[in-house]
Amino acid sequence: MTTPIVSTPECVFCGIVAGTVPCAKVAEDATTFAFMDIDPGSDGHLLVIPKRHSVDLTDIPAEDLAATTLAAQRIARAVLSELGADGVNLLNCSGPVAWQTVFHFHLHVIPRYRDKSKDRLALPFEPGLPADAAAIAERARALAAVL
Amino acid sequence: MTTPIVSTPECVFCGIVAGTVPCAKVAEDATTFAFMDIDPGSDGHLLVIPKRHSVDLTDIPAEDLAATTLAAQRIARAVLSELGADGVNLLNCSGPVAWQTVFHFHLHVIPRYRDKSKDRLALPFEPGLPADAAAIAERARALAAVL
Repeated sequence: MTTPIVSTPECVFCGIVAGTVPCAKVAEDATTFAFMDIDPGSDGHLLVIPKRHSVDLTDIPAEDLAATTLAAQRIARAVLSELGADGVNLLNCSGPVAWQTVFHFHLHVIPRYRDKSKDRLALPFEPGLPADAAAIAERARALAAVL
Repeated sequence: MTTPIVSTPECVFCGIVAGTVPCAKVAEDATTFAFMDIDPGSDGHLLVIPKRHSVDLTDIPAEDLAATTLAAQRIARAVLSELGADGVNLLNCSGPVAWQTVFHFHLHVIPRYRDKSKDRLALPFEPGLPADAAAIAERARALAAVL
């Protein structure tokens, strides 16, 4: 766990919130800030972040997580209505092994299109492999015991 | 937009909440229910859903979305502490083109591991392609105009 702090001078997303790092801004409110991803996976791919610095899903305060998610919902609806997207993904990456590269919590809002010229995403894993039901049940028990 | 309803008889996730469809349950509270994904992309891959039926991100009521996300955070922390995961992804798929296959809102909680024998996910797109800054700025303006 990391103690949340308002801003870190070395964090590029804190710089975006502060206005010292340029971005293509989409929206902001008291708690959250949204801007375009500079490395988009699809047309209109953007990020929603809490203004207050958190590293990832493990340390973000509940109120910031709820506000960021609700902002992402509002923006996802605009992506569908204004950009002509056919669907949308929300993605959070927490930890380097989970593809996190900027260590300020962010939700990806990724518009999805039937038109593949606007959308270069591929399924992150192929479904339908035989699953080990006993192993799955064991994981459920391990988690249920602490929840 | 779809009007949220409490339950639909043909929805398999409503059946899981009602107890008429079996699952490997992980946790539940007044608003949410969590159970293992039967087609896991990694060891411990699970789903968190609102008990009340919503189709996707566009129609889920704010209180159900916030509760589902906060439940996913609690469970993600357990995944890290109890299953030895090295990171975690949260993923929502809204719409068939975004890989949604069950039309009851759900958040994937996907534990991630450096040990690839436990984790078969691959990046859904390769980062680092040259981006069209003018097109990105135009999308930001289109969204900002309605947000």
